[in-house]
Amino acid sequence: MFKAIVSASTLQDALDSVSVLVDECKIRLNEEELSIRAVDPANVGMVDLTLEAAAFESYSADGGVIGVNLARLEDIAGMAASGDLVHLELDEETRKLHIEIDGLSYTLALIDPDSIRQEPDIPELDLPAEVVVEGAQLNRGVKAADMVSDHIRLRVDEAEESFYIEAEGDTDDVDLKLTREDLIAFSPGPADSLFSLDYLKDMNKAIPADAEVTVELGEEFPVKLHYGFGQGLGQVTFMLAPRIQSD
Amino acid sequence: MFKAIVSASTLQDALDSVSVLVDECKIRLNEEELSIRAVDPANVGMVDLTLEAAAFESYSADGGVIGVNLARLEDIAGMAASGDLVHLELDEETRKLHIEIDGLSYTLALIDPDSIRQEPDIPELDLPAEVVVEGAQLNRGVKAADMVSDHIRLRVDEAEESFYIEAEGDTDDVDLKLTREDLIAFSPGPADSLFSLDYLKDMNKAIPADAEVTVELGEEFPVKLHYGFGQGLGQVTFMLAPRIQSD
Amino acid sequence: MFKAIVSASTLQDALDSVSVLVDECKIRLNEEELSIRAVDPANVGMVDLTLEAAAFESYSADGGVIGVNLARLEDIAGMAASGDLVHLELDEETRKLHIEIDGLSYTLALIDPDSIRQEPDIPELDLPAEVVVEGAQLNRGVKAADMVSDHIRLRVDEAEESFYIEAEGDTDDVDLKLTREDLIAFSPGPADSLFSLDYLKDMNKAIPADAEVTVELGEEFPVKLHYGFGQGLGQVTFMLAPRIQSD
Repeated sequence: MFKAIVSASTLQDALDSVSVLVDECKIRLNEEELSIRAVDPANVGMVDLTLEAAAFESYSADGGVIGVNLARLEDIAGMAASGDLVHLELDEETRKLHIEIDGLSYTLALIDPDSIRQEPDIPELDLPAEVVVEGAQLNRGVKAADMVSDHIRLRVDEAEESFYIEAEGDTDDVDLKLTREDLIAFSPGPADSLFSLDYLKDMNKAIPADAEVTVELGEEFPVKLHYGFGQGLGQVTFMLAPRIQSD
Repeated sequence: MFKAIVSASTLQDALDSVSVLVDECKIRLNEEELSIRAVDPANVGMVDLTLEAAAFESYSADGGVIGVNLARLEDIAGMAASGDLVHLELDEETRKLHIEIDGLSYTLALIDPDSIRQEPDIPELDLPAEVVVEGAQLNRGVKAADMVSDHIRLRVDEAEESFYIEAEGDTDDVDLKLTREDLIAFSPGPADSLFSLDYLKDMNKAIPADAEVTVELGEEFPVKLHYGFGQGLGQVTFMLAPRIQSD
Repeated sequence: MFKAIVSASTLQDALDSVSVLVDECKIRLNEEELSIRAVDPANVGMVDLTLEAAAFESYSADGGVIGVNLARLEDIAGMAASGDLVHLELDEETRKLHIEIDGLSYTLALIDPDSIRQEPDIPELDLPAEVVVEGAQLNRGVKAADMVSDHIRLRVDEAEESFYIEAEGDTDDVDLKLTREDLIAFSPGPADSLFSLDYLKDMNKAIPADAEVTVELGEEFPVKLHYGFGQGLGQVTFMLAPRIQSD
């Protein structure tokens, strides 16, 4: 059983954060929250999303799991005008999701959850450095790195008390230096890791410019990017595996 | 003889409604009005447009017929700034149309009207149902149908007093239900017909979002879409042949 | 030695006016001004740009010459938000240009100036006609000409006291007539020359809509287009060779 009403913008923010990594996903319709975990086919990027029942206008669910085509669901949510509410109701018998937006009814065939790639276990990592940065700043660093390289380096300079987003190209280099004053919060620690820029670009696309993004980092360790949406009742965590730095 | 002055936006609205169906058309320059009738090469969609002399700043014509390339004429009208007037004058000898917009003069070579596909006779049909709907609602229905199918079904449910825009895909279905309250006017009657979505998408492109569109419908009959432009002094009627529904 | 701070918009305007003609250029870092001269590979269009030291927030240079990839430099300048300042500093040893925009540091590898096409000598021409026209009007004429031809004719009608931007196509013709009232200034003289439209389109792209463009013209002579930017402390002159008119 699943029946819920949610604002179109909250639904869109949720879907966007998952669709940057995978085409299909399982959605867990728990009693207290809706949740999604997914990993890209290369096992490099993961997403863990929860949206509390309180983020919905109304929400009732009893723990079922559905499989959805994300692009299709995003198209439907895109039919909503700003401020529209989206009504969702699962038909258990036909395994279809009924979606209704201001007189428009859409019957979405679901995907067998067993046919969808297994949900990842997102590891607990005790990473030594933590930076809280505006989405817009992260976006600047990613765009700058994209001018010169396919890789991006995230680094904390403990002596300088600064967080660096860097990229080295064949001829040109770029770095964005964010000092304690530029950051929303900063717990320095030893951190220096290289990542595939394509993945970080995709994750960056989903992060709103005004989001407060918590970045957890280590030395040649995965990075975790965490931010809230839906008035803080939705939470997204991205995890991205590092590339080995060859010097 | 033909000499007229018209606002760029009225001219553009007129051209847009014809160019969605054909590349070239005949324009009849009657004494009391300018008129265009055209049918697409597959004989599926027709348009009938009239623009009264009163819609022009000034208008004088004596019943001639000219043939024009619509894309070219739209490009020229597109050079006008909002609020600009377009001056049109036919040179009978050279068979060219002189167009002047705020100092910009364009001499357009006309097409021999005899080389243009014959104008259709748009049949009088006494269709049993009539719905008056906002252009924006029609647009929603067309966009939704486009997510799942190449066909679109227009249907009146007399018992429910509702007008349905529907589409059935291989796995997903969509419908937009418009009740009497959602409609500007509604004369229910037996009506249920299937149409090629491509044609309705093209016609929909020409219909302004705030237009009041009169939709006349029957059972496996053509649909007529009628709306005004140019402060009500211009009239467009589209007619679209149905697809046979195979059940 | 070169070290300067300049507003991003002034830098962008400067780069745009050169990049429409060439991919790489030499920049002369003179004590009193920065200057660029370049000619396109076909020797048809030239640009001569100067930006006075006073156009910069701060400027110090001693006459060096650097070679730059313009697209790359434009991308970097494009990272600036409106109102941002761009810090430029030449590293003489590594032959790299350090660029800093609000915490973002970019190290740009320079190009050996000797590998860049020689700077043209832009001839002094005493052209008989001079027209001062808004960038927006020039843009209208160029767009209109582009509908019918690959060439554009610039002509002064001394008797009519008008400046004409004209194009003749295979079937259609277009002209924009600008009278003394439409022009900012007008010194009529014998002038009638034909130009490649592609070049004038490129130059037109760099000219702001609100620029006052001084057009110097003769009979089958090059045209010079001159306008200011950066609060009048930057000057651009384009020169375009004529096409021979065959009648």
